[in-house]
Amino acid sequence: MAESLAFHQRHLITMEGLSRDEIEAILAVARSFRELNERDIKKSPSLRGRTVINLFFENSTRTRSSFEIAGKRLSADVINISASGSSTTKGETLLDTAANLQAMVPDVVVVRHAQGGACEFLTRHLECSIVNAGDGRHEHPTQALLDLLTMHDHIGDWADKTIAIVGDVTHSRVARSNLIALKTLGAHTRVVAPPTLLPRDVQNYGCEVHYDLERGIAGADVVMVLRLQRERMQGSFIPSINEYFNMYGINRDRLHRMAPGALVMHPGPINRGVELASDAADGPESLVLEQVKNGVAVRMAVLHLLGQGTGI
Amino acid sequence: MAESLAFHQRHLITMEGLSRDEIEAILAVARSFRELNERDIKKSPSLRGRTVINLFFENSTRTRSSFEIAGKRLSADVINISASGSSTTKGETLLDTAANLQAMVPDVVVVRHAQGGACEFLTRHLECSIVNAGDGRHEHPTQALLDLLTMHDHIGDWADKTIAIVGDVTHSRVARSNLIALKTLGAHTRVVAPPTLLPRDVQNYGCEVHYDLERGIAGADVVMVLRLQRERMQGSFIPSINEYFNMYGINRDRLHRMAPGALVMHPGPINRGVELASDAADGPESLVLEQVKNGVAVRMAVLHLLGQGTGI
Amino acid sequence: MAESLAFHQRHLITMEGLSRDEIEAILAVARSFRELNERDIKKSPSLRGRTVINLFFENSTRTRSSFEIAGKRLSADVINISASGSSTTKGETLLDTAANLQAMVPDVVVVRHAQGGACEFLTRHLECSIVNAGDGRHEHPTQALLDLLTMHDHIGDWADKTIAIVGDVTHSRVARSNLIALKTLGAHTRVVAPPTLLPRDVQNYGCEVHYDLERGIAGADVVMVLRLQRERMQGSFIPSINEYFNMYGINRDRLHRMAPGALVMHPGPINRGVELASDAADGPESLVLEQVKNGVAVRMAVLHLLGQGTGI
Repeated sequence: MAESLAFHQRHLITMEGLSRDEIEAILAVARSFRELNERDIKKSPSLRGRTVINLFFENSTRTRSSFEIAGKRLSADVINISASGSSTTKGETLLDTAANLQAMVPDVVVVRHAQGGACEFLTRHLECSIVNAGDGRHEHPTQALLDLLTMHDHIGDWADKTIAIVGDVTHSRVARSNLIALKTLGAHTRVVAPPTLLPRDVQNYGCEVHYDLERGIAGADVVMVLRLQRERMQGSFIPSINEYFNMYGINRDRLHRMAPGALVMHPGPINRGVELASDAADGPESLVLEQVKNGVAVRMAVLHLLGQGTGI
Repeated sequence: MAESLAFHQRHLITMEGLSRDEIEAILAVARSFRELNERDIKKSPSLRGRTVINLFFENSTRTRSSFEIAGKRLSADVINISASGSSTTKGETLLDTAANLQAMVPDVVVVRHAQGGACEFLTRHLECSIVNAGDGRHEHPTQALLDLLTMHDHIGDWADKTIAIVGDVTHSRVARSNLIALKTLGAHTRVVAPPTLLPRDVQNYGCEVHYDLERGIAGADVVMVLRLQRERMQGSFIPSINEYFNMYGINRDRLHRMAPGALVMHPGPINRGVELASDAADGPESLVLEQVKNGVAVRMAVLHLLGQGTGI
Repeated sequence: MAESLAFHQRHLITMEGLSRDEIEAILAVARSFRELNERDIKKSPSLRGRTVINLFFENSTRTRSSFEIAGKRLSADVINISASGSSTTKGETLLDTAANLQAMVPDVVVVRHAQGGACEFLTRHLECSIVNAGDGRHEHPTQALLDLLTMHDHIGDWADKTIAIVGDVTHSRVARSNLIALKTLGAHTRVVAPPTLLPRDVQNYGCEVHYDLERGIAGADVVMVLRLQRERMQGSFIPSINEYFNMYGINRDRLHRMAPGALVMHPGPINRGVELASDAADGPESLVLEQVKNGVAVRMAVLHLLGQGTGI
């Protein structure tokens, strides 16, 4: 595909360093795979004879399945390795794991890990391409890419558009990847949350910072609601779930009042009634199902672009 | 295959509503795949580029493997998802699961679930074909189909044949699917068990009801013995394992005395010495190994007929 | 491939009974697959339409993945069955498992089991080829074959070469398979360990027995260090880890002093600082990474030779 000419990365670890052209190249390839996925015969010979390893140190059926089906539709040989045992998370054993992976001469290794640096580490010890499928609080680039694809279908070019990201930015690898990419693409971004859920240096991502929901989402084209992790719900991050919903929860009424015309996104799975009410999650402004649907196509695009290993 | 012209279902959830022609169409296709499975090259291009998802909420290595090999021999892309976590069994999350499955645009989803209505629920929320691989106490249609294929090889047409089903009918999804199908096919059916192991409305399946083994299996062409679930062995359903075997257990001597010429079937795995003695399980009257062997062929037939999605 | 003409086994359970020609045939085929694995398109049509089942009663991600990728690169349909539940390790259930496996008409079943006789048992109850992927303390023939391939690349013909195996020979299926094969190939073998870690009849393998490291590895071409299983580290087998390392541990200094020019091997995973120091594990004398790398090629060779089922 001609679009792949614009893509010059060997790995996909972070959205940092991806140019606008590269992001658009991935989205263009994803669009063509989205068409393929609507056909009866959902199969491309693109990665025939290539090996894709899904190496998941954290359990994530949804992301693993999405990459697995993506690899298989591209005709790759796909192997799932779930390394949930705690021993494999130690540095030395990750090196041992890397050596054993390299022995299989994979073309792409898709990695999910609880620690931010694991993917980076593997790029230094494996000869193949690494795709970050979520590493700690760091990044989750394929989720950002599917968010971008979904947005672009609805708001067109990002320039002079406003994306408000509401909720637990500190612990969200999805927010981080989106903020980086949206800056590259020239969108206006805002983060909206209590100070306890915002990283200290958040303005470095080029976003406005809001503590007040009404002002934070006013005039936004897209309101991206983040999942409130259960482990933050008790304790010092937020006073209570009810109070959180009162201050930062999104329902349809608020959306219409505070940000008329805005679209709603959520990376899933949704805590209904905590950060997002069902009327907004399932309403006509919601892009949630489209986000989910774009996941396989985006992952096919990433595996296709990285997996052929030809001149990238 | 010409036989598929007779098959007009989109899903396989229950044997209810399957016509005699449809059942025979499935069995005819299964016979041709049984031949394929005897060859060196056990591969059909039938589902190339189609996606089959095995969604197992209950662990069942045997059934899952059988569907997996069936899908792969038909050249489908097969994905296993085991959702044994209890959270996914709640209604809301099953809806969330459905949305995520739909995003992968599968052609067939094979579902095993502890609750009777799960498959039905998924037919309303997914655009693809659903195959029930066992849902609670409700039904297990592919097991019934492999039983029918096995019987038909030995007793020919079902009209004026007598099938006696012995044991825990209440908790058996296999018994339920068989009773429905055998009624459609015109066989005489009997259930033989203590009243505690028979559903209240069992005569609605058109079967004779017997509490006495000798009269229950007299003159039967096939004695289908059901597995006594370990959790029923203690407590109020049966007085004791010994007494159960004394009253309802099948061994070769009883078989010859009470139902000379009858064949023995069991859906497996057998509790040897509880509901079925080894001399009967492994004797010349036993069709147990043939049942097992017909499983892959029947599942190939079902996936083939549903998975192409063309005019069914 | 012409080399396969020399190979006449139906199963690979033990290195016992494999002729020199047969071992060399496997290694020759493995070399050609090693070349294939270096290409962009790592795919052979050799086992298209054949079914390979990985039946793992013990968890071993590394070995399972290695066989899985091997089978997939040969175009086989590969099914993983992990039977870690304790019930399946009992004799009767293994028979039940065998019947269910046979029903899938596999071409090769790869078996890992905690008990020595499990593979042998399955050869009597399945019609397909069985590959032993490690059975209790008995044997691990594909590990021995990859060791042989690695050695042969460096020391050429085995005649008049000396291989010293250092460590827990009693509990090592790898050591047992290597000792048998190296005897067939005409190499001199030595075992070096405290008496508590040597089997009583070890000299039957045709090896010299040494309790002293210095004399044991003097003049060796290869020093093969065995993993000290954690469960042997406490208790009566060795006095303490420190003392074990002092008496039998291998580091680079000792290697240069006691066996100049010798190469170092280890079946992995290494207990660094227990049986092998990092300077020796990662030094220029180490063949550890090559061993790992040869694993996939050797397993492809074994599956290729057994899986076609034509005149073997």
